[in-house]
Amino acid sequence: MKTITKTPVVILNFKTYLESTGTNALNLAKISEKVADETGFNIAVSVQAPDIYRISQEVNIPVLAQHIDAVEAGGHTGSNLAECLKEAGASGTLINHSEKRLKLFEIDEIIKKTAKLGMNSVVCTNNIETSAAAATLKPDFVAVEPPELIGSGIPVSKAEPEVVEGTVEVIHSINPQVKVLCGAGISTGEDMKAAMELGSEGVLLASGIILAKDPEAALLDLVSKI
Amino acid sequence: MKTITKTPVVILNFKTYLESTGTNALNLAKISEKVADETGFNIAVSVQAPDIYRISQEVNIPVLAQHIDAVEAGGHTGSNLAECLKEAGASGTLINHSEKRLKLFEIDEIIKKTAKLGMNSVVCTNNIETSAAAATLKPDFVAVEPPELIGSGIPVSKAEPEVVEGTVEVIHSINPQVKVLCGAGISTGEDMKAAMELGSEGVLLASGIILAKDPEAALLDLVSKI
Amino acid sequence: MKTITKTPVVILNFKTYLESTGTNALNLAKISEKVADETGFNIAVSVQAPDIYRISQEVNIPVLAQHIDAVEAGGHTGSNLAECLKEAGASGTLINHSEKRLKLFEIDEIIKKTAKLGMNSVVCTNNIETSAAAATLKPDFVAVEPPELIGSGIPVSKAEPEVVEGTVEVIHSINPQVKVLCGAGISTGEDMKAAMELGSEGVLLASGIILAKDPEAALLDLVSKI
Amino acid sequence: MKTITKTPVVILNFKTYLESTGTNALNLAKISEKVADETGFNIAVSVQAPDIYRISQEVNIPVLAQHIDAVEAGGHTGSNLAECLKEAGASGTLINHSEKRLKLFEIDEIIKKTAKLGMNSVVCTNNIETSAAAATLKPDFVAVEPPELIGSGIPVSKAEPEVVEGTVEVIHSINPQVKVLCGAGISTGEDMKAAMELGSEGVLLASGIILAKDPEAALLDLVSKI
Repeated sequence: MKTITKTPVVILNFKTYLESTGTNALNLAKISEKVADETGFNIAVSVQAPDIYRISQEVNIPVLAQHIDAVEAGGHTGSNLAECLKEAGASGTLINHSEKRLKLFEIDEIIKKTAKLGMNSVVCTNNIETSAAAATLKPDFVAVEPPELIGSGIPVSKAEPEVVEGTVEVIHSINPQVKVLCGAGISTGEDMKAAMELGSEGVLLASGIILAKDPEAALLDLVSKI
Repeated sequence: MKTITKTPVVILNFKTYLESTGTNALNLAKISEKVADETGFNIAVSVQAPDIYRISQEVNIPVLAQHIDAVEAGGHTGSNLAECLKEAGASGTLINHSEKRLKLFEIDEIIKKTAKLGMNSVVCTNNIETSAAAATLKPDFVAVEPPELIGSGIPVSKAEPEVVEGTVEVIHSINPQVKVLCGAGISTGEDMKAAMELGSEGVLLASGIILAKDPEAALLDLVSKI
Repeated sequence: MKTITKTPVVILNFKTYLESTGTNALNLAKISEKVADETGFNIAVSVQAPDIYRISQEVNIPVLAQHIDAVEAGGHTGSNLAECLKEAGASGTLINHSEKRLKLFEIDEIIKKTAKLGMNSVVCTNNIETSAAAATLKPDFVAVEPPELIGSGIPVSKAEPEVVEGTVEVIHSINPQVKVLCGAGISTGEDMKAAMELGSEGVLLASGIILAKDPEAALLDLVSKI
Repeated sequence: MKTITKTPVVILNFKTYLESTGTNALNLAKISEKVADETGFNIAVSVQAPDIYRISQEVNIPVLAQHIDAVEAGGHTGSNLAECLKEAGASGTLINHSEKRLKLFEIDEIIKKTAKLGMNSVVCTNNIETSAAAATLKPDFVAVEPPELIGSGIPVSKAEPEVVEGTVEVIHSINPQVKVLCGAGISTGEDMKAAMELGSEGVLLASGIILAKDPEAALLDLVSKI
């Protein structure tokens, strides 16, 4: 289990595309590891729960879950138990992704649980206000992603730079230890460079790399301007 | 991937107990396989998503998921995609467990999806009426479990035999191909025998075996009266 | 409190349009009552919870809720309690509308609750299969509405007549006392006539009337071909 | 429509008890108004949606909703639209009550919506951390209620005074304009006095008054020590 220890960081969200499921997921994780090794860049992959064990056995980069449920061990059939994900090899998790929004008290509980288990917490948010709220709960990362730009190919760092800057500013005033990531629409080295210049410490992205014709080339381009 | 092809069947729901997570889950699955081999009885295990790959690589009995989300491949971060669970080794899934109740349209979609993928569908229900409703959707199994008896140690086959009988009767009138399982409070061979005499074709159970001091002995006793 | 006692029936879903909120809702309910009186046609309105009391005091046609929660009286802050809606003047409710989908066990509980309170139950469904499932739970009405046609202006009775016919057929085989309504895309007298010819006993509709320039004229046209 | 303009304030949550439904709700609201008039104390009632219109027509104290959905006007059958609640007479709303927990982004949207409509926002929270998060979203009030004490008769002001003090402290450091209320287990004048001494500006309570043999006497006692 390898956590995210340095920034800048790229977190690649595999979502539930067939292109990033099962054997395809393993291949994409290996490509991510290769680019990380070649460039010295920190790259983490966030994969579907059934793929965590297999991938974490075969690659040496951080493997994150996509979701943890706010439950303790016991009678919770069908829930994602943090302890189970960790034992399978997850070193952290996305929390409150726009495709899996959570209740406020659940976000609080999950952050506490990951901290207790030594796992990274990456809370996704939709605007400056919810980013500030999330920062008070002391996660490792807040990834701000205006929902209208997710999967759009239009990078938030260009379309709404004030959202990224505003998030960085408010989070630094609340808790400077929380790192800001920039999500939504990121796919190129230019996008990532812009995101970093706005004060973020990395990016969270998915389709721009996952669905690229050549994911390795796309990933190499992504980190090429930093 | 090994589906459930014969009845009577025992489905062991691992839930999210630490006693049935990770390495403990693997051990329990091996015990289940051993008892299945020794007795010739059909035993399937329903395990947490992160444990499916590892367990299905190591045992030769049906491994079920505990939950599938009603989503198609794509942008559904944090969801349980049927295709991913299947590739990891799941040959079927619980649906609508009392700890993970689903919307009516979702149950319909998931049953259709599992049928398309050649996976077993086991819909959990809470009474005769919802069992009838579930049966119209053509799952492989309906497991009727009055919620007040789950984890109680009081077997439904004794406390409310009329629920099991009524479910068997109504389901046979709607769709005789749907098999009825009996859940809630089952833990001994006597309980299982009673369940079968009421017309069910097997049992779904959890804590009675998972949390037993000696799960192997408990499992051997469970199938000893049939 | 006036229940729906005869068919054919038109149920007008006010949804949460400003055009059918508060005073606008009251006006629309009065128009509905006027058309009902003039034509002898059964017209019911399904209005937002805060508007039920005021409207039911002023019109003499059935006033339905849009949703009831599956809760008993007690500590359920923010829930829609059946007893409260009934005392405010609701004589029935929509259940499981495509914009408020419910869990299977909730649909069962709500139908039982409405039956006990003498209220009409109108379960909305999305296809033939879920219509059959709903019918086993013995509601008064099943309103089948393929979600892709809701608000489309394309009537289900023309676009997918086989869904209406199939629903009528399967429901009659399961429980002939359950009446089938036809929803989704209905707005004209032609649509309603087609719906009736396919075997339904009425329609559930919203924007086609609510957002019409002249709702009274639209409603008169709707019932003109029967 | 009368908003909460002064503190200390008592907000009486009617929940979904039959004792505070329909005519009973109206009577309880009149008692609350009487005590408010006699003592000069600010008392607001938070009532079920179907009861808002009737009660707000008959009493001259603030009437709050128990829940608003994070939706805009349109196609949202069964949702609680802010505009509808306001037109019916609600001058504010509870948000995120422990019996109706909401997603983080929804709390943000609802607070913005109430501010825009001139309605009071009262966000309920379960601990110091989520209170801080809520305060960043600029509601009028945060009502902290440890869930284990709700309805217990054990006042949070005595059982966990550090939660109230901690909440007051952290909220004042984040946004001094947000007022803190104290909930959970409050029922007597002593409880309320203790709550005020810990820095809160009022209480949110339910069963202690609603289910009292003599609600008027209970309410008079509640405000007697301030």
